[in-house]
Parts: sequence; structure tokens; C-alpha cells
Amino acid sequence: MGAISRQDCERLDVDDPLSSMRAAFQLPSDTIYLDGNSLGALTYAAAHRVQEVMTRQWGGDLIKSWNLHGWIDLPATLGRRIAPLIGALADDVLVADSTSVNLFKIASAAARSRGARRKIITERGNFPTDPYILQGLAGLVPDIELVQVARDDIGRSVDENTFLVVLTHVHYQSAEMFDLPSITRLVHQAGAKILWDLSHSVGAVPLDLAAARADFAVGCCYKYLNGGPGAPAFMYVRHDLQETLEPVLSGWLGHARPFDFQDDYSPASGMTRHRCGTPPVLAFAALDGALSVFEGLEMKALRDKSVALSELFIQLVEAAGLGTELALASPRNAMQRGSHLSFAHEDGYTLMQRLISRGVIGDFRAPNLLRFGFAPLYLRHVDIWDAVEILRDEVRRWRETGGASIARMAVT
Amino acid sequence: MGAISRQDCERLDVDDPLSSMRAAFQLPSDTIYLDGNSLGALTYAAAHRVQEVMTRQWGGDLIKSWNLHGWIDLPATLGRRIAPLIGALADDVLVADSTSVNLFKIASAAARSRGARRKIITERGNFPTDPYILQGLAGLVPDIELVQVARDDIGRSVDENTFLVVLTHVHYQSAEMFDLPSITRLVHQAGAKILWDLSHSVGAVPLDLAAARADFAVGCCYKYLNGGPGAPAFMYVRHDLQETLEPVLSGWLGHARPFDFQDDYSPASGMTRHRCGTPPVLAFAALDGALSVFEGLEMKALRDKSVALSELFIQLVEAAGLGTELALASPRNAMQRGSHLSFAHEDGYTLMQRLISRGVIGDFRAPNLLRFGFAPLYLRHVDIWDAVEILRDEVRRWRETGGASIARMAVT
Repeated sequence: MGAISRQDCERLDVDDPLSSMRAAFQLPSDTIYLDGNSLGALTYAAAHRVQEVMTRQWGGDLIKSWNLHGWIDLPATLGRRIAPLIGALADDVLVADSTSVNLFKIASAAARSRGARRKIITERGNFPTDPYILQGLAGLVPDIELVQVARDDIGRSVDENTFLVVLTHVHYQSAEMFDLPSITRLVHQAGAKILWDLSHSVGAVPLDLAAARADFAVGCCYKYLNGGPGAPAFMYVRHDLQETLEPVLSGWLGHARPFDFQDDYSPASGMTRHRCGTPPVLAFAALDGALSVFEGLEMKALRDKSVALSELFIQLVEAAGLGTELALASPRNAMQRGSHLSFAHEDGYTLMQRLISRGVIGDFRAPNLLRFGFAPLYLRHVDIWDAVEILRDEVRRWRETGGASIARMAVT
Repeated sequence: MGAISRQDCERLDVDDPLSSMRAAFQLPSDTIYLDGNSLGALTYAAAHRVQEVMTRQWGGDLIKSWNLHGWIDLPATLGRRIAPLIGALADDVLVADSTSVNLFKIASAAARSRGARRKIITERGNFPTDPYILQGLAGLVPDIELVQVARDDIGRSVDENTFLVVLTHVHYQSAEMFDLPSITRLVHQAGAKILWDLSHSVGAVPLDLAAARADFAVGCCYKYLNGGPGAPAFMYVRHDLQETLEPVLSGWLGHARPFDFQDDYSPASGMTRHRCGTPPVLAFAALDGALSVFEGLEMKALRDKSVALSELFIQLVEAAGLGTELALASPRNAMQRGSHLSFAHEDGYTLMQRLISRGVIGDFRAPNLLRFGFAPLYLRHVDIWDAVEILRDEVRRWRETGGASIARMAVT
């Protein structure tokens, strides 16, 4: 096989079954956006929905909108739209609050029903949301112990004293993906429960929580789901566990009969009990619009394209002779990673700044990682080709301007 | 004094120093909106701000907006705008999450540093958010005891075993207002701390938390602040207490150095530590626009008008001879109530439905209360006059159609 040309990429775009999806997005013309793993792009559907909810509903119908326009049901309505994307039953998903808050909700409720077990296990080196929130819980409840272990030690750490394991399915740096069904099985064998953080998976990687009999999940909606900056997050509880989980963040809207205004909390059935305060309706509107883009799509098609784009990126980086300076920090086997790639570079921060100034938007994670995300709905194969051309350019320029020696000086 | 005419009300509107503020709001022409105590109206400033943040910032600048457009600072930026409305120092207020979640944040953090004291006291019959959340906390931490007492028994219930008192300043039903400075003093004398829920006060009642040396406060921004349905809420911690309060909802963005991605949580200083997950930027944008309307206004002017409108409403109800059927369920002395009025009526639900069908929007609270809110920024004196005319009409119609006997049948 010869070198891959831009024309080859154009042909791949013509054959791409998802190519028409790009038109659903409002994308800046001077940008190649490889950061959809951090903040997904704006869809026209989201923009229209927000405008409608704000002006016509809030502005025009005011308080009546809670019933008239179904605002009160938004957490369940949007949960039902996310359910097929994670392999959940329709009523087992709720959209509410942030990933951090939802994680606390589940972990604290699980703590209430933990029996004699006292240990929570989570991964050291994971994105900090999860360990920080669990540290807060362990700081409040005296006999809960949080154990943070290395990725490879999780299996052997789960024991008869463990009531909960919290793992992020796709790692925020390396994109390394846990084998969700087999880890779930292993945790269950020890009599513990597992909470999966799907923030870097949902909308890019096929998931089947029900088939894996996963206990709990949370995830964010502003990455591959394009729900908007700080979009409300989702939470999932396996159906047969729902009535056993008593909320700690027992809010008014999670009450069995909120409009009775009783003095004593009595949880609603199902996922509704995990509603807490009043949902931010404008943020829900944006997510609602964004999710409409996923209707009728198969997660497999999204995954196939995501893999194709990331494989293309790796091949072009290697073909451009950048492999010596840009060390792949993600699994080389696409089946073992999510939808982004990390590359280590000794002066990664400077290099990413240069890429951004040229319109190639990725991000940098300390100490030395460049991250590039491959959102399958709006990226074309030619975007990848163009991005790597600019990357080659900037690595060459970095070399020529003595970047390497500057970087070495900076760390001494 | 003779009867108050509509012309009298027109003259009052001409003399109203706040009359020009109404133009800042997009109000439906066929509605008299007396429910701003539940959901404030849409300002043009909020609509413009959301449009700008959504299309130009999210759509155009994507991930760069976090720094370029100050998204990352929104919780502090909006906190600084709310501070003068509640008598707080600029940096002592944070906007984040919902009132329920913020209440949990403060109560749980206070529980961590409570020493030997174990009791939380709150009002029985308050809006359920507060007792429910505190019940959740007490359900998780074995040695915390929640005591719910009647309004008049609060003073004598606070004792040397109490670490926290949680009260809502203005009652959601009666609008009865606690004397914030004197209750705060009383709680402090017992060595306890007080958390004020200002949801029904902020934006309508002058507040001076700093002068009262109040310890903590939370409140919602979608009522008199017009921040939009489910707008992010605020939280306040008195300056000298901030470093003593260790978060339980210890989220990534509350870390001292979030972008170091360390394994162990270390709280940021000041209010920043109470940030948790990623803020919903579109919801913040609406609130940002709504708060711009308050710039340069004195809370006293808002309070004066709110009192004038509610007094007018009471006088007109009495003059219309409705006093026998509509029993005022709020304090008659305006200084003892917030910015809404409740009236008991034996068939309140039906009556409110009829009012709503005629374009007079209040709300109903079980078992028999009609609530009317007086948002001083966008209501005119003639609106009050027209509303009471329709109210008179509908009470008469209710009588004539045998409403009273139907209502009696319904409860037997």
C-alpha cells in the first residue's frame, strides 16, 4: 500500500454512510475540531430547541410550561432517549444534575444499604471527579474506606469487604477501555456492586449495560452527545436494584407525591427518586435537540467510523515520520480504546498551542500529552488528513526553531 | 378615602420610579402574571445573552470559550452580581447547582466539623426541599439527629447539642418572614450556626447577611431574580468560616489545582471549593442576562413597590367584598411578610383554574391556598386592579354556579 493521499480521504468521505450527519452541526469554517471528546459541537437542532423553549415556552407560557410543555418530565424524557445509547431499559435512565453529583447520589445511596461491607475501590490515576467525590463521601461517613488502586490491581483488590467498585470505562488520558462485561462479572463474584462512569464512552462506543447486568452508571452529555457546555448528566440504576436504593440527596422532586408538600420524605418509585432540585430547563432543551440527531442511528456505525478516523490518524502520523517524537500513549489496538488518542511529546503544551493557532483544536493534558478526539458525527476523513499535515508542519517548525532544546531547558 | 379606581392605579404607575423596568421583560400581552414568586419572567437581556453564548461562543469558539469567554469563572462572576442583593461581600457568594444540592453541600460540610454536637433543627411545615435534604443527610450519618419543630418552637429548641439550624426566611405558603438578625443572634448564643434559605426573599426583600453575621445561606435564582426555569442556585458562606468548611461534594472544579489532575482532593480556598461538576453554561447565560437588569437598582425601591402592590391587592379584595370568602393567610402587616400573598378559599383549586383561564396567573397550594406574587420589576398597579376585577368576577360566578355546594360535596 502506498501513501494515503488527500484524494483517498475524499473518496472515503463519499463512501461514508454517516457523511450526511455533518450538516446537522454548526461548525466554524476555519477549524478542524478534534476536541469533541471534551466539548461536543453545536447542532442546529439544539439551537432551535433552546430558542423555542426560551422564547415561546418560558417567555410566552411562563409557569404553565411545567405541564403544558412537559418540563416537569424532562429528566425522564431525556433519560429514555439516552437509554438505547447505553443498552438500558427506557425507564432505567434519568437525566439530572452533573456527573459528580450523580456519582455522589449513587455511591451515597449504595453506602446506606451496604450492610457490613465498608470498602469502595476505584482507580488511581482516573479523572479526578470520581476519586474526589468518593473521598468526600468517605470523609463524611466514618466507617467507609476508599481504596485507590492501580488499574491492573483492581481485580485482586475486590474482596468480601467491598460494597462498591467505581470505574471509568474509557480513560480520559489514554482512552484505554475496560472490558465492561468481564469486570462487572468479577465484581459480582465478590458480592460487590459496580458503578461505571461512561463520560468518555457514551455516544462513541457501543454499550450494553443490561446484558452485562451492570449495577449503576453515570455519564456526562457534553462530549460525544453534544448536549452543550456543562449539559445535565445521566444516571442509570439496574431495574431490580431501584427499589433498594434510598437516596441521600433526597430532594423535593424525588418524593413520591411532591405536590403534597409533606414533612417527611418518601421516595418515588424507580429512577424518579433520584431527582433532586428543579432541572435547568434551558440546558435540558439543548440536550434534547442534540439527542434528536442520534435518532435512528446505530451505535455500531458510529463506532466503525470513530475507529476508521483514529486508525487513519495513526497511519498518517506514522507515514509522516512523526512516530519518533510523537509516542502513541493509547492502546494500538482500536478494540481496546475509546474514541480519542493521546500522544506524548516532550514539549506537548507548546506544540498544542501551535496547532490551535493554526485551527487544529485538540487539547493538552499534563505532563506531556496531546489529545485528539474523533467525533464520528461531524468529522470527515479529509479533516484528519488536513490535521496531520498541519501537525507535521508544526513538529518540523518546532524542531527547526530549536524547540527541543528549549523544552529541555524548561524542565531542568 | 373613597374606592380606589383604575385611574388612581394609572396615576400610581406614572409616579412609579420603577415603571421603566417593565420594558426589560418579554411579557405575554394577554396575561397578568402574579406568579413571579414561582418562575420569574423572561428578560430581553437573558434571551440575548443565551443566544450569544450558544451561537457565537459554543458554536463558534467551542472549547476555547472556557477561557476566552470566561465560562470557567461563571460561578464566581455571577456570585459577585448576587452579593449586593443579599448584603454579602463580593467573593462570599457562589452560583452552582440547585438550591437542594447547595443546601446539602453546606449542611454536610458543617456536619464534618460539628464536634460533639449532633442536632440539626429545622421548621416543620417549611417547603419540603430543606427537610427532605436534611433527612437524607441524617439517614447517611448515623449520629446526626434531625429535629423538625413548629415555627414558634424554634427559639426554645436550639440547645448546646445543636450544630445547625436551617430556616427559610420567607415561608412559601404564608409569606411570613423570620426576623433574620434576631434569630441569627439567638442561634449564635447557643453556639450553633444558621443556614438561611433565601429562595423566596432574594430580589424582593432587602437582605444584609454580613451585618447579621449569618453563617450560611442558599437560594434559588428563578423566582424574583428571573434567571430562568431551574436556573443555577447560589450559596453563601460567611468569610471567616470559609476555610473551616471542608466539602463533602468535593468535585474536580473545587480542587485547589484542578488541572493538575492529582489523585487526592485538596480544597481550593474560599467559595471555589464548593464548585463541584461542570457548570451548565447556557443556564448561567440566562441568569447572567437577568441579573444585568438589577444593576444600579436599590433593593429598597423594589421592596417599597412590592409592598405597595400587595397592599393594593389586599385593599381591593376587601373593597370588592371578597374578604368573607377569601381569608388572608399571610401576615396583615407588610413588614412581616415577603413579596407574595396567600388567601384561603374553600374551593381554591377550582377558583385558581378559573383565574388562569382568564389570564390571571397565580398558583394553588394544597389544601386550599391561592398564591399571588408581586414581582416589583414588571408589575403595574393597573395589573393589580385588573386582576382583582377578574377575581371578583370569578368569585361571583363561582357562587352563582353553586360552586360552594360542589366544593362541599367533593370533600365529604
